[in-house]
Amino acid sequence: MQKVDHIGIAVKSIEESISYYIDTLGLKLLAIEEVESQKVRVAFVDAGNIKLELLEPIGADGPIATFLEKRGEGVHHIAFGVENIRTRMTELKEKGVQLLQDEPKPGAGGAEVAFLHPKSSYGVLYELCGKGSKGE
Amino acid sequence: MQKVDHIGIAVKSIEESISYYIDTLGLKLLAIEEVESQKVRVAFVDAGNIKLELLEPIGADGPIATFLEKRGEGVHHIAFGVENIRTRMTELKEKGVQLLQDEPKPGAGGAEVAFLHPKSSYGVLYELCGKGSKGE
Repeated sequence: MQKVDHIGIAVKSIEESISYYIDTLGLKLLAIEEVESQKVRVAFVDAGNIKLELLEPIGADGPIATFLEKRGEGVHHIAFGVENIRTRMTELKEKGVQLLQDEPKPGAGGAEVAFLHPKSSYGVLYELCGKGSKGE
Repeated sequence: MQKVDHIGIAVKSIEESISYYIDTLGLKLLAIEEVESQKVRVAFVDAGNIKLELLEPIGADGPIATFLEKRGEGVHHIAFGVENIRTRMTELKEKGVQLLQDEPKPGAGGAEVAFLHPKSSYGVLYELCGKGSKGE
């Protein structure tokens, strides 16, 4: 794991919460996009050395909608930037880590992502966030 | 907020979980210390651009013991590094943010810390982490 790329934060509404990050904390909004495969709208906020990724559910049955229903708003995951996501996934599997999927899937910002099961990670949902085999 | 200094992660036992961070994820242990005022033992792990701060309760009645009982292991807080914590606290109060204390208190690593109420922060417990008026 080279470094932390971003922290994913589940919010009910980007429209309601974004002002807190921009106007109150003084951070900068980088972009807003939708990730159909994850059923989320995502706001990227620049926190200097990493990004905060505000995740708002689209519809009632995606992973963020489920998270909000169970846990309420708050930190959803921590994403490590990795250079070759498939190699990292194989290494972690060989070390006994349970992954939530066998193949990387498309994430926000054009990244390929894969999640490590919180049961393997002492309660934290970690994401591997790769830009493909070329690295970042 | 200049940048994210660390992510605080509540764990039942540093002894049990540290191997996951070091041997499995390949990160580096920086230091372990006790913070009496917070009733925690803290392991600092180098995640490249930020630190992960594993927080193990000492005794049954501190804030991390309470968090573990209510929520289980997982992300506890996100800490912003700030240069003058008292000035930042005043600015945030003037913007309507509820703080968990009026004065900074001693945190891990010799820092002065103060927490923003998750109700002000859309479910996230943010910490201001200052090295005093001299900055970092």
